[in-house]
Amino acid sequence: MSAYWQVQARKAQDILQQSIPKQWLIPTDKLPSADELHVEDFPHKSGLLTERELNITETSATSLVKDMGEGKLSAEEVVVAFLKRAVIGHQLLNFATEFMAEKAIARAKELDRHYKETGKLIGPLHGVPISVKEHIGIKGLTLHGGYAAWVDDIAADDAILLQYLGKAGAVFHVRTNQPQSLMHLCCSNNLTGTTLNPYNRKLSPGGSSGGEGASMAFKCAPLGIGTDIGGSIRAPAAFCGAYGFLPTARRNPCIGIKAPSLGNESILGAIGPLASQSIEDLNLFQRAVIDQEPWDIDISLAPVPWRRVKPTKEMTIGIMWDDGCVRPHPPVTRALKHAQEKLQTAGIKVVDWEPYKHAHGWEIVSSLYFPDAAASQRAILAQAGEPILPLTEWALQYGPKTPLTVRENWELNLQREVYRSEYHALMKSRGVDFVLCPSYVGVAPVLGEPHYWNYTAIWNILDQPAAVFPSGLTVDPALDAVPEYQPRSAVDEREWKNYAPERYAGAPIGLQLAGKHFKDEETLAAAELVSNIVLGKENA
Amino acid sequence: MSAYWQVQARKAQDILQQSIPKQWLIPTDKLPSADELHVEDFPHKSGLLTERELNITETSATSLVKDMGEGKLSAEEVVVAFLKRAVIGHQLLNFATEFMAEKAIARAKELDRHYKETGKLIGPLHGVPISVKEHIGIKGLTLHGGYAAWVDDIAADDAILLQYLGKAGAVFHVRTNQPQSLMHLCCSNNLTGTTLNPYNRKLSPGGSSGGEGASMAFKCAPLGIGTDIGGSIRAPAAFCGAYGFLPTARRNPCIGIKAPSLGNESILGAIGPLASQSIEDLNLFQRAVIDQEPWDIDISLAPVPWRRVKPTKEMTIGIMWDDGCVRPHPPVTRALKHAQEKLQTAGIKVVDWEPYKHAHGWEIVSSLYFPDAAASQRAILAQAGEPILPLTEWALQYGPKTPLTVRENWELNLQREVYRSEYHALMKSRGVDFVLCPSYVGVAPVLGEPHYWNYTAIWNILDQPAAVFPSGLTVDPALDAVPEYQPRSAVDEREWKNYAPERYAGAPIGLQLAGKHFKDEETLAAAELVSNIVLGKENA
Repeated sequence: MSAYWQVQARKAQDILQQSIPKQWLIPTDKLPSADELHVEDFPHKSGLLTERELNITETSATSLVKDMGEGKLSAEEVVVAFLKRAVIGHQLLNFATEFMAEKAIARAKELDRHYKETGKLIGPLHGVPISVKEHIGIKGLTLHGGYAAWVDDIAADDAILLQYLGKAGAVFHVRTNQPQSLMHLCCSNNLTGTTLNPYNRKLSPGGSSGGEGASMAFKCAPLGIGTDIGGSIRAPAAFCGAYGFLPTARRNPCIGIKAPSLGNESILGAIGPLASQSIEDLNLFQRAVIDQEPWDIDISLAPVPWRRVKPTKEMTIGIMWDDGCVRPHPPVTRALKHAQEKLQTAGIKVVDWEPYKHAHGWEIVSSLYFPDAAASQRAILAQAGEPILPLTEWALQYGPKTPLTVRENWELNLQREVYRSEYHALMKSRGVDFVLCPSYVGVAPVLGEPHYWNYTAIWNILDQPAAVFPSGLTVDPALDAVPEYQPRSAVDEREWKNYAPERYAGAPIGLQLAGKHFKDEETLAAAELVSNIVLGKENA
Repeated sequence: MSAYWQVQARKAQDILQQSIPKQWLIPTDKLPSADELHVEDFPHKSGLLTERELNITETSATSLVKDMGEGKLSAEEVVVAFLKRAVIGHQLLNFATEFMAEKAIARAKELDRHYKETGKLIGPLHGVPISVKEHIGIKGLTLHGGYAAWVDDIAADDAILLQYLGKAGAVFHVRTNQPQSLMHLCCSNNLTGTTLNPYNRKLSPGGSSGGEGASMAFKCAPLGIGTDIGGSIRAPAAFCGAYGFLPTARRNPCIGIKAPSLGNESILGAIGPLASQSIEDLNLFQRAVIDQEPWDIDISLAPVPWRRVKPTKEMTIGIMWDDGCVRPHPPVTRALKHAQEKLQTAGIKVVDWEPYKHAHGWEIVSSLYFPDAAASQRAILAQAGEPILPLTEWALQYGPKTPLTVRENWELNLQREVYRSEYHALMKSRGVDFVLCPSYVGVAPVLGEPHYWNYTAIWNILDQPAAVFPSGLTVDPALDAVPEYQPRSAVDEREWKNYAPERYAGAPIGLQLAGKHFKDEETLAAAELVSNIVLGKENA
């Protein structure tokens, strides 16, 4: 006899299985064997997709919309191409929680009709397939957030963000996996299992928007939607050779997300985009949403229009080589040096960025994640009696051992405000516009191993926008040997000991660019220029 | 032997007494006797001020700045005129906690030198005297917020808002009184005592910015600065025949204010202006501050520029006659009818506004004031052993009997968000741009009697901007008799029973106009037009 949580897990699995469009399932014998770790190139090697389908799925959202506007592509063929690739991706990576193929194709046909009748696109995201993390509500579908206890919860409405994206023409075709508790930088739960990284299936696609990371890496969608309160958009993007953006809080509407501690305003998560092709697509996403003035529905938002900001070389970038707590692994340092050289060659002013009290920042943010000593999360886990996964235990112990009083919570809020002000003032006084830094201590960690959050979480506590993009480099044992190093602390030692280049072979190396509070537009503009320079797409 | 709190009180009194510019003190025998209740016209009747001084002190900040820009007035004579009037006002009303005459005059002289040398004003508030509520920090001066325990606390810096105002040319000449705990709509503490209303010295000037109310009513400054988390700017303005503005939270910088529950972000107070002459001056104040982009220092602010919005008759005003809980006293209803007629005559669309769940709003906001069961406040009171005033006890019992858990606090936050969204959606669906409503259940209450906050607090919980202005009417026993009325509840009965027109003879009747969240500019523009129409300054 199954335990209650197993019954719930089975429901989630059934929903997933029944939703997979069977016509595009690949027979097992045509799939790479489980011990083939690098599968990112399988669409090309397998011959399962046509040349046109490969082209479509490797085209940016910006270009797809342009092509649809010129009648070169139909929305239907676009979504079908991505669906086919997504089904293969799911078979290899287990990244989906539910496909929405019929509805997506029907919507694409509507868009095509609209275009045929009017000669016009319906909006700036006309026909763009977007994958969506499961805990972002879609009317009539599950809203479990990786918790067995919540599998029967059905969304009454689409999340506000999806409503705006839908109006802009987006097509939602697949929902994606997330870890138990939504608080791992990894992607495993008791419902639909563990999502894998296509660059190396022993590695994590990151989390908590791990399904989105895999979706982007495998090009199952040009754009995806994740949420991020400690790195949950950026870590998956970085681990998967993709692009991701943490906006300043209170810019994108979060109404319609399910999570255990809604109402905790001490540390705000953000909802934002991932992209498989470019920073430009992240900008397209943001523009499409904020141009609709979402603050008129979600009045918790700041009524700040999405400004048009052009990339400029007139900026100063501070490179943070190390956060003063945990030394980045050699590949990350190599990618930062590579970026430094490229930027300097391109004539951009680059200085070193000395980190400011990142350990203090972590103390604040980690307490504010779970001021109730994670009682909320533990209650939901206990409700279904589901096993608590190691990374869940890991995260839940961040909080205080006993619940904070409201007064203690206020004091942390004040500390947070002071820290934010000091950091902001420091960027101004040092004349640094953006901080280029690691996205994580290393590249994609081995499954189950991501323990150190503070290369991403620091920008959450500071509420500064941050974009992640690939450096174009991958781990190379010949270049990324283990140097002599005396760790500064037990945490530093734990992370350093994980490193051996062979463990991460083939993993892409992502970088992160953080801007000032509410300078979202400038941050994306700078990240576009920087990523193009670093990737060699743009010269001085 | 004195108790500790008495020692502290004596210090506060000494600071006040020593600060009063002795040259302008009026001998007691030239002052109205204590039983003369209406003293608002004393400056005119007494002959103590010159015609020019009377003119200066009854001129708007906007006009004063214009006159100084044309060399018709010097900043020095302006501040001296207001100081003289303020000293008299203080003798009659006990509204000050400290004069800053020397510093103010020195600053005015600097401004005059600047003007003489450059032919230019230093900024949009050049030479405008502004009175400041005591709990807003001024470097080197007390920062006690009406608490005996805090009398020795000295501000390390000027509050951020004062820094911006100072850069714009403002001159701070007097600090003003506030009630114990800062949570009365009245103005009495154990330090410098009780502030009186110049229209009737048996009545309250309101609170908590009660010293500011008196300052405005007596024209001790053209502009004042208060803070408001439940009506503390608007009640004093309304009770004192003046103008006041509650901006949307996170627009004006609050850093540098002292209060017991800083860090409680569930219900945010706002800092904002009062004015003795016009809504236009409130706008001037806001523009002068926000044009300096205060979000670059106080990064808790929304980076929303101060938009230039012109008054327009193309708007719909909903009149809320009653909040569904406590019936306004007859003078208030008469003033609303008066306004309705004037607005209709002027061609403005006026409809009735049905209140939406104001009791529910009060339940949320009153719990969020003191989620720690007011332990913070009681600890500060106990620290000095000072007697707890009845209105302090009254306010502190609003909160829960035992401290909320952080989780319970989160649930209230969520209820608050839902309530805000619903109210906002309702204004849109009903096509109402502004709600014209009472500022309070009645006019200025008898000292010690203000108990019902929800005509103002409702806009705090909703975080909607609201402006208060005089209707031009005063209580008239001939017009404002007590009609037959069957109260709906004990609270309604308590407030109704207070009413007898004779008790409020001569009191001005204020009105309140609330706008939508973040529509501060539109709210002030509309309030300017509405107040001019209601006061007969502008016709259709």
